[in-house]
Amino acid sequence: MPKHIKSTKEKIGMAPGTLIHVGERLSEDVKINLIKYTVDSFTTEILNDFSSIEYSPSETSISWLNVDGLHDIKLIEQLGNKFNIHPLTLEDVLNTTQRPKVDFDDNYIFVVLKMLYYNDELREIHSEQVSLIIFKKYLFSFQEFEGDVFGDLRKRLQQNKSNIRSKGTDYLAYSLLDSIIDSYFDILENIGNNVDEVEDKLLSNPDKAIMPEIYNLKREMILLRNSVWPLREILGSLIKSDNLIVEDKTLMYLRDIYDHTIQVMDIIETYRDILSGMLDTYLSSISNKTNDVMKVLTIFSTIFIPLTFLAGIYGMNFDYMPELRLKYGYIMFWVITLITIIFMINYFKRKKWF
Amino acid sequence: MPKHIKSTKEKIGMAPGTLIHVGERLSEDVKINLIKYTVDSFTTEILNDFSSIEYSPSETSISWLNVDGLHDIKLIEQLGNKFNIHPLTLEDVLNTTQRPKVDFDDNYIFVVLKMLYYNDELREIHSEQVSLIIFKKYLFSFQEFEGDVFGDLRKRLQQNKSNIRSKGTDYLAYSLLDSIIDSYFDILENIGNNVDEVEDKLLSNPDKAIMPEIYNLKREMILLRNSVWPLREILGSLIKSDNLIVEDKTLMYLRDIYDHTIQVMDIIETYRDILSGMLDTYLSSISNKTNDVMKVLTIFSTIFIPLTFLAGIYGMNFDYMPELRLKYGYIMFWVITLITIIFMINYFKRKKWF
Amino acid sequence: MPKHIKSTKEKIGMAPGTLIHVGERLSEDVKINLIKYTVDSFTTEILNDFSSIEYSPSETSISWLNVDGLHDIKLIEQLGNKFNIHPLTLEDVLNTTQRPKVDFDDNYIFVVLKMLYYNDELREIHSEQVSLIIFKKYLFSFQEFEGDVFGDLRKRLQQNKSNIRSKGTDYLAYSLLDSIIDSYFDILENIGNNVDEVEDKLLSNPDKAIMPEIYNLKREMILLRNSVWPLREILGSLIKSDNLIVEDKTLMYLRDIYDHTIQVMDIIETYRDILSGMLDTYLSSISNKTNDVMKVLTIFSTIFIPLTFLAGIYGMNFDYMPELRLKYGYIMFWVITLITIIFMINYFKRKKWF
Amino acid sequence: MPKHIKSTKEKIGMAPGTLIHVGERLSEDVKINLIKYTVDSFTTEILNDFSSIEYSPSETSISWLNVDGLHDIKLIEQLGNKFNIHPLTLEDVLNTTQRPKVDFDDNYIFVVLKMLYYNDELREIHSEQVSLIIFKKYLFSFQEFEGDVFGDLRKRLQQNKSNIRSKGTDYLAYSLLDSIIDSYFDILENIGNNVDEVEDKLLSNPDKAIMPEIYNLKREMILLRNSVWPLREILGSLIKSDNLIVEDKTLMYLRDIYDHTIQVMDIIETYRDILSGMLDTYLSSISNKTNDVMKVLTIFSTIFIPLTFLAGIYGMNFDYMPELRLKYGYIMFWVITLITIIFMINYFKRKKWF
Amino acid sequence: MPKHIKSTKEKIGMAPGTLIHVGERLSEDVKINLIKYTVDSFTTEILNDFSSIEYSPSETSISWLNVDGLHDIKLIEQLGNKFNIHPLTLEDVLNTTQRPKVDFDDNYIFVVLKMLYYNDELREIHSEQVSLIIFKKYLFSFQEFEGDVFGDLRKRLQQNKSNIRSKGTDYLAYSLLDSIIDSYFDILENIGNNVDEVEDKLLSNPDKAIMPEIYNLKREMILLRNSVWPLREILGSLIKSDNLIVEDKTLMYLRDIYDHTIQVMDIIETYRDILSGMLDTYLSSISNKTNDVMKVLTIFSTIFIPLTFLAGIYGMNFDYMPELRLKYGYIMFWVITLITIIFMINYFKRKKWF
Repeated sequence: MPKHIKSTKEKIGMAPGTLIHVGERLSEDVKINLIKYTVDSFTTEILNDFSSIEYSPSETSISWLNVDGLHDIKLIEQLGNKFNIHPLTLEDVLNTTQRPKVDFDDNYIFVVLKMLYYNDELREIHSEQVSLIIFKKYLFSFQEFEGDVFGDLRKRLQQNKSNIRSKGTDYLAYSLLDSIIDSYFDILENIGNNVDEVEDKLLSNPDKAIMPEIYNLKREMILLRNSVWPLREILGSLIKSDNLIVEDKTLMYLRDIYDHTIQVMDIIETYRDILSGMLDTYLSSISNKTNDVMKVLTIFSTIFIPLTFLAGIYGMNFDYMPELRLKYGYIMFWVITLITIIFMINYFKRKKWF
Repeated sequence: MPKHIKSTKEKIGMAPGTLIHVGERLSEDVKINLIKYTVDSFTTEILNDFSSIEYSPSETSISWLNVDGLHDIKLIEQLGNKFNIHPLTLEDVLNTTQRPKVDFDDNYIFVVLKMLYYNDELREIHSEQVSLIIFKKYLFSFQEFEGDVFGDLRKRLQQNKSNIRSKGTDYLAYSLLDSIIDSYFDILENIGNNVDEVEDKLLSNPDKAIMPEIYNLKREMILLRNSVWPLREILGSLIKSDNLIVEDKTLMYLRDIYDHTIQVMDIIETYRDILSGMLDTYLSSISNKTNDVMKVLTIFSTIFIPLTFLAGIYGMNFDYMPELRLKYGYIMFWVITLITIIFMINYFKRKKWF
Repeated sequence: MPKHIKSTKEKIGMAPGTLIHVGERLSEDVKINLIKYTVDSFTTEILNDFSSIEYSPSETSISWLNVDGLHDIKLIEQLGNKFNIHPLTLEDVLNTTQRPKVDFDDNYIFVVLKMLYYNDELREIHSEQVSLIIFKKYLFSFQEFEGDVFGDLRKRLQQNKSNIRSKGTDYLAYSLLDSIIDSYFDILENIGNNVDEVEDKLLSNPDKAIMPEIYNLKREMILLRNSVWPLREILGSLIKSDNLIVEDKTLMYLRDIYDHTIQVMDIIETYRDILSGMLDTYLSSISNKTNDVMKVLTIFSTIFIPLTFLAGIYGMNFDYMPELRLKYGYIMFWVITLITIIFMINYFKRKKWF
Repeated sequence: MPKHIKSTKEKIGMAPGTLIHVGERLSEDVKINLIKYTVDSFTTEILNDFSSIEYSPSETSISWLNVDGLHDIKLIEQLGNKFNIHPLTLEDVLNTTQRPKVDFDDNYIFVVLKMLYYNDELREIHSEQVSLIIFKKYLFSFQEFEGDVFGDLRKRLQQNKSNIRSKGTDYLAYSLLDSIIDSYFDILENIGNNVDEVEDKLLSNPDKAIMPEIYNLKREMILLRNSVWPLREILGSLIKSDNLIVEDKTLMYLRDIYDHTIQVMDIIETYRDILSGMLDTYLSSISNKTNDVMKVLTIFSTIFIPLTFLAGIYGMNFDYMPELRLKYGYIMFWVITLITIIFMINYFKRKKWF
Repeated sequence: MPKHIKSTKEKIGMAPGTLIHVGERLSEDVKINLIKYTVDSFTTEILNDFSSIEYSPSETSISWLNVDGLHDIKLIEQLGNKFNIHPLTLEDVLNTTQRPKVDFDDNYIFVVLKMLYYNDELREIHSEQVSLIIFKKYLFSFQEFEGDVFGDLRKRLQQNKSNIRSKGTDYLAYSLLDSIIDSYFDILENIGNNVDEVEDKLLSNPDKAIMPEIYNLKREMILLRNSVWPLREILGSLIKSDNLIVEDKTLMYLRDIYDHTIQVMDIIETYRDILSGMLDTYLSSISNKTNDVMKVLTIFSTIFIPLTFLAGIYGMNFDYMPELRLKYGYIMFWVITLITIIFMINYFKRKKWF
């Protein structure tokens, strides 16, 4: 789906670390949602910029700043200066064509991944880039558009379910990753239903409309795989890396979503195998149909072409044609005709053409 | 087979470790079967819950608790509290869509795998998740439904065959894994018979019904592979891991079923290769059939179409057509006709169309 | 070739290490052939059982005991007790569906592999399991049936060629492996001749009979690969393992047959690639044939169908048809007919249909 | 695209390190462009040869010498002598058929890679070899022809954007690599547009012209992959190598373009998968078209061939044919004809051939 | 190309290290060419056997002994005894079906590889085995036939180009390998030209003769790959091995030809990909041709079959057929005929069948 591979053309020759937003530009305001919590407290706030936020290493409460919209470059620069974030990191936040990846800095971990939505009408997967910058006490998440899969997580934070507020930004980051990866299963279920549908059609009544559907599903699987495949590496790096932000007790949780990622990959590969099988089945069904059409033509032709020849003979105008004068000539003709037809039908029946 | 990929949709956004049963819910009661044995003793008991079971590190007898049915979440919670099992482990026990895996905790080893049944009528593999939580003296096994492949193992325990009661939970766990992997061979034999059947049809009389059968067998192989493939890793981890539960003398047994797993994978790959070859053969047989049908049509047409034209000529009503007036005109016509037919038949014979 | 994947069904639920013969049961007696030699002596003897054999670590002569037939379980048990062989090893000796493998025990090395025979008439590879139990001074080889590829080796032992009697059981084992792997080249040559034959047919006169032949050859390659592939690992393990039985000076010989195994794999993969190419060629030849048949039909039809229509016109009985009254009407008809035929033939010649 | 694989024929048997230019020979002069800068200064100069350049280890300013044209071997030899460059390195600079690679010498790093241009009219990728010899204070870049993708980089150097002049040759080399890899995205976008175009045609109106287009795009992807694939290794070596030229703070930048390279590979593989899918779709569309053509033929033939036979019957000249004498004979004939036509049309409608 | 896989049948059962020549036996004499040189001296001599050669560790000049012809086993034995060469090495020298490989002995390095020639008329690659036994001061090269690619190397030795005589046997061995690998590029260029030719035919006028050509090229690529692929390992081992013969300063040269080998593999894989694409294109071209043939047939049939039916109607002899009596009946018939033809042609034009 070349349409989904966005260009970074406008960037060629620019200095690395030059901040430029690559992606759809929107006129709406950028929204910053701050959730600040400790075990005992929980506050939520909408900010216009980062002016009220200060990096403080001795901070005790956890702050989650979610940014919807990436077109306000000044805001990102402001953040970069305040939190001493590497220009390449900021560049990657803004470049929404980034491949999912993880980078480790001295003070923070930077994660890029894809949030996916399935448009059931268009039967298309839509992808939105999510970047996380994880400090010990601050977590910044950047999304291209409003709307995400984190609603339940916000509720759990508010209600402090499973004592989530007693845990650090590493657990919060894990929860965000978990929500995103869980949503992949949702998409796979939707696609699975479409695969089921196409399979049913294929086995009952395969027609021309099936090929583009198989093609489409295959393409969606390719795109999905591209988004999911790098996650293995990312989670592997997070688990193996020796950094101060991810605590040991969080590792088990990361391993858990690592397993989920493997499972997503397994399902994707399974669907790809099944779609390949469906393609083979479809191609063989076309060949069989051509075969059937040919048989109908051949049966009719081989029965009637010789008979038409016979009729043609007795339509000739030779002066001397003794059969034409016979009393039972015409009846004989019919007898021969019928015998021929019966013989041919038997022949084709034996050949199992019916 | 998308129908077999169960959704975890209801879980999105939930806190990790939230216990929720994902799978078919049944109204039957959950059954707990306790087998407790030492070298000298063997008792078996049906329990309603885990209230009579207490974790005791100095316990000398081995307890195997088999749970049939996973819909009673309270029971699982009760167990979790008593044996200090990590919430993520309990979550995985209940989520029957889990990919086979192994997790090592301080006190126990957690193994998830698939028990497979072959429904010969539907020609479908049915899968049931089995989870094992292996403590030093306790082994918990969880199944979705009643009925399993452990009948012979229970007998061997009762009769203390090969001195099985003198061995630990690691050997018991090995015996369970061994029973399950042995049953895979059984399934492969069933599928192998179907492959044989389809192959015989294919080589003797390939018809349209073969394609869906090949497709089905391919799909079953994909599903089977998905269940078996992760077993290699699981057994590899068990063999390599340095833990207190698996004793050295059990390693040789684990290596043995590791070899069996490799063998199962080999057979699956062999069948996949064979099925690919069958597909090619089938597709070439359709093409050959079309070819044959075409030949019949062409032979009839090329013989009779020119002759019909000839008959048509002498059916014309031109005033001046000298041949019509000839005494032997009609006989000449037949002579030409027969020569043409003989010539054509020879021509096709030389072309090896008969 | 599912027929070749033997079931281990009867074993499900049995205790591991239970001795049961899996394979074809024969009524003939089991034959034990003992060859005992030192540099200076060579004796050969037929035994009925192992009662006269005693394990003695200080033994100086080398004993090679070759067992033909595996259905006498008592014999195997007797041996197991005398030489302290692990039950799992004995189980593997009897289970002739074993995947080739190597196991290292404290006192012996256990090797399973396949001896292959090519039945040129049926064009089928037959496989027989050979197991070797290699002690420092004793080597046990087990075969399913009488007859093997070790005849020349026995002669060399008797004649002490290349001073073979001065070497240990490791060198003897190497010689056995070498004989078996050399025989694979023989089989590959036979198959290669068949591939040549099919290729010649394919390029000169491809007909329907070729497809099953290609399919068969492919299946044989799959089976052959299954037998040979594990050998790489086995030899790799033997070379790398640090054990007391394989001496350093034998390693070079093992590396030599390791290279041969790689070469066998290379040839197998080459044949598989060539067979794939032959399949493509065959499929394209069917398509070309259909094309040719279609061209014959089309040439005849497009020439004669319009002419038949023309003849039909002048066979009509309209009262007023001026052409019929013309003196040269009939001749005109023939002129038009011949011009049409010449034009059409030219047209098809330009299209290169002839 | 064999045309793109240039021969090194003229080199066989020559001593390694013999300087000979392999590639297109041009009559134009070789141009040397020297850019010399420190944080505070920037000078640019056109040189005729390297006589004015001297290697000085204590040099403080950075010199970038870009050479356009490789046919002046003396110049290269002069450089080799002055800077003590290994003959094999010089040989590789001149051999423009080199596979991208990196070599580490004591004093310099040698990198070969491909600069690619997309000719949108010919829909062809053109490739030009770029070699970099990176000393601590000098960087030599060699191109086959004038014109490159470094224009923006030169501007940034002149304007000292992002303080680029304060960094070493390692950062300069990184900037050159970055420019080249960025240009790959540009090419991928162009190809992506072509893929889109072909896809649109394929889904709306697939005709014969599509196959060569798919074939062409596939070939371009193969060539592109060949140029990009070795870059991973090169960048990996640069990042991992422990040398004095690449400073630690540059590693992050190299990792960044390493990520870009992976992304380019991902996109290439995605396109290859999509092109495979398009091929399948195209092949199925031909089969469907043949099917449709066959249906038209069969419908017409099966309707009219029997009717023509019927008409033929009543064109016979038997003396005794009672139907011909019937008053309503002719009308009956039409009734039968119409009933037959209606019946056949219904039959084909039910078969969904319309 | 099974014809190229030579059997080692005659060897089964022989003792390892038995010297037997496997390959084409020639009646010509074996030729030994001795080139002996130091920096200052160069002598060349033809020997009949090795009697005048003595192994002397303190030797200062370098001796290169090239043996053309392998059928004189005594000569090889003589050499083996004099230089203390392992029997397995001698066996491998004589067995010309050896897979390319490297072996390290205490005193020498043994390398086997293939020298390839391209017969442009037969479009076949011919392969000749070359073995090198490299001592510190002696290098033995064995070829099956006279004639090789080392002519230029001999000249360089004589003229002491690039001071080649001052270097050791390792550099001489490198030069031999370099000559051989350079000649692979030559072969690839020849094959590349054939690929170009077939591609041009394919895109301009694909006919049946193309398929065997593609098949042939594919087979040549398979054989070429088999010869080249093991070279990577060989060179890798030579570079990594810690032996006394290969000096550090030669490593850079070995790395250089290692890179060339990778490049050869790259080109081979590229051609294989291109040939696959050509196969797809060819298959689609057959389908398109069949389609075109079908269209011609269908156009003619659907136009003339209904019209023939119409003519048949008015050729009927019913007593009462009013149209026949009409004055303009015949003209009406022609009007209807022409309208039908025009309508059909329009219909097919709209369907884009022309």
